[in-house]
Amino acid sequence: MATAADLAAMRRAIALAARGLGATSPNPVVGCVVTDAAGRIAGEGYHRRAGGPHAEVHALRAAGDRARGGTAYVTLEPCDHTGRTGPCTRALTEAGIRRVVYAVPDPTPQAAGGSSTLRAAGIVTESGLLAAEAAEGNTAWLTAVRTGRPYVLWKYAATLDGRIAAEDRTSRWITSPEARADVHRLRAEADAVVVGSGTLAADDPQLAVRGIEGAVQPLRVVLDTRATIRPGARILDGTAPTLVAVGTGADPGPVPGAEFVELPPADDGGPGLSVRALLAELYGRGVRSVLLEGGPTLAGAFVAAGAIDRVVGYLAPVLLGAGPAALGGAGIGTIADALRLDMTETVRIGPDLRITAVPTATATDAATATATATDADAAVPVPVPAAPKER
Amino acid sequence: MATAADLAAMRRAIALAARGLGATSPNPVVGCVVTDAAGRIAGEGYHRRAGGPHAEVHALRAAGDRARGGTAYVTLEPCDHTGRTGPCTRALTEAGIRRVVYAVPDPTPQAAGGSSTLRAAGIVTESGLLAAEAAEGNTAWLTAVRTGRPYVLWKYAATLDGRIAAEDRTSRWITSPEARADVHRLRAEADAVVVGSGTLAADDPQLAVRGIEGAVQPLRVVLDTRATIRPGARILDGTAPTLVAVGTGADPGPVPGAEFVELPPADDGGPGLSVRALLAELYGRGVRSVLLEGGPTLAGAFVAAGAIDRVVGYLAPVLLGAGPAALGGAGIGTIADALRLDMTETVRIGPDLRITAVPTATATDAATATATATDADAAVPVPVPAAPKER
Repeated sequence: MATAADLAAMRRAIALAARGLGATSPNPVVGCVVTDAAGRIAGEGYHRRAGGPHAEVHALRAAGDRARGGTAYVTLEPCDHTGRTGPCTRALTEAGIRRVVYAVPDPTPQAAGGSSTLRAAGIVTESGLLAAEAAEGNTAWLTAVRTGRPYVLWKYAATLDGRIAAEDRTSRWITSPEARADVHRLRAEADAVVVGSGTLAADDPQLAVRGIEGAVQPLRVVLDTRATIRPGARILDGTAPTLVAVGTGADPGPVPGAEFVELPPADDGGPGLSVRALLAELYGRGVRSVLLEGGPTLAGAFVAAGAIDRVVGYLAPVLLGAGPAALGGAGIGTIADALRLDMTETVRIGPDLRITAVPTATATDAATATATATDADAAVPVPVPAAPKER
Repeated sequence: MATAADLAAMRRAIALAARGLGATSPNPVVGCVVTDAAGRIAGEGYHRRAGGPHAEVHALRAAGDRARGGTAYVTLEPCDHTGRTGPCTRALTEAGIRRVVYAVPDPTPQAAGGSSTLRAAGIVTESGLLAAEAAEGNTAWLTAVRTGRPYVLWKYAATLDGRIAAEDRTSRWITSPEARADVHRLRAEADAVVVGSGTLAADDPQLAVRGIEGAVQPLRVVLDTRATIRPGARILDGTAPTLVAVGTGADPGPVPGAEFVELPPADDGGPGLSVRALLAELYGRGVRSVLLEGGPTLAGAFVAAGAIDRVVGYLAPVLLGAGPAALGGAGIGTIADALRLDMTETVRIGPDLRITAVPTATATDAATATATATDADAAVPVPVPAAPKER
């Protein structure tokens, strides 16, 4: 039975883990709190970046000798393998930790087995404490390692009648400065931001994180089938790396500041590039979470590909009555085929409303559905990720 | 300075008033609480229907002799005129009431002056207690008497991407049973429910209140320019009166169960009938609140006419990517001309979200804007209603 002190320590570990969002891929976010033998907090830590020390190591260093006989609270099962850093099981054992409490089992075969190793070393291990909360904080990574593709959050901003721009395509600004600032937080938490060439041409967006101290800039990705991108686009300004996906044989000419990759055409024979191929390409590059900021056509292609894990809509209290809708071309012709979601949160952001929703568990793509917050604690080690995982 | 007892009594009066919503037009809703000389509640009442006793009379009857030396709390300034019932000022004086506390001054010249008459009779009068809350409960009536047209609430139900139906026009059901039940509450509170011939043809709606005990059925109104309605439509089933507005000279032929009225064409030369003429016709019939349940075209005509006082949107966590939008043809071509609103409430209704919004106070139609909840206490007697007012 978990004590109030156990719960408090794990809550703190979960909060610490969240600080790493957007900076740790291909690794998960992990937080750790170490208490001394008397149960007093002795050290804290979180995984800050791939290749850097794990959360446990940070916390053990901070605790020093006070860790001896103490407890380590970790949001994810401590790893048991040697990657760019040594296994955490050894660090915990050597520090004299007596008890390890972790929230979520590690679903990856490379890192799993940590708890067995700890028990073999005589350390008491307990799992499952605040597992749902901890899993929610790691939703993107857990979903990605289960499905073998990056977790995709589709963000849109629209009027109450679902328009993203007026009839003449003017749209600055439908949502408020507060809502736009909130989007920068989403970008900071994502490994990659994806748009289509339509958005590139219409808005010339920079797609960088602004206004968030210490944020890691996400990879900027453009789906640009016919290689229409031109030098001087803001997305090429060097503030972050930029990847341009083009159709086979499309020749962009010289475009400094971007890397190009060729992708096969859309899986369904429609226009554009294969969403699945794009996600595989990004996964191979270590991307575990994608913020989809594209227009209605690109969002429709992702919906059609079953590749939306979460929707965040910013609704402005505005009516237009004309202009492009937030979503188009999703391949849904009748109401029975609609993509059904569950709203997990609604919150006012300035004058606007932010709605968060996830596909319902009854959705056809069960792998996607298990990414919902409510199911996130049902973490079981299933698909093996294609890329080597290190944390 | 209002005491806690004063506030409690007025809150109760406001709650009582709300029971009359949908049943009192062309009168306002009014609630009244009478306390005895010691401040104990002696009687309660509310205005139940036009032509019936006013709230004060109900409460005084319930209090009987205990009213002598007591206080009457009324949500609206007591009337001073003789209509179908005698003036409340006289009833209060004859009952021996010592003090009258009312929330909102009566803006109509026929009924106003009540407080002067009471003071002349030696009764202490106080106004403004919980005026904002009381005015909000009476928003429809207060707006109607100020603007000289019925208050219009536009209700829609849509997906997160703003669609009211799928590409093939299937739409049963986008929103949940809970949301649909909530719409019946809106109908019960309205004097009239308005749709267009498009909705009539597509859905054959009954437009009656179902599932609400004791509800007064609203007038059912169809805008049917070319008189396409045919006998047997569910709207003609006799559960409530039905008014069909047709274009000049349009011949419906024999359609039992409906009254017909001819209206001039749309003010802006567009298709359909004049929204202003429709609202004037309804106002003349005693309608003070309209629930607009029409499709995108009719809603667009109301937006274009500046005749939307409140928007209630039921958003279902569903994505379609195709299909008709909730609003069309509002005459808005560019973002600067968008209709800007303030969200006054967001609440979960089953799996769906209900968003309530009102035009911002900076909207061009200032008369409409003063109908917002936040401004509702700024009630000043301005325009004289066209129809005689009685309460």
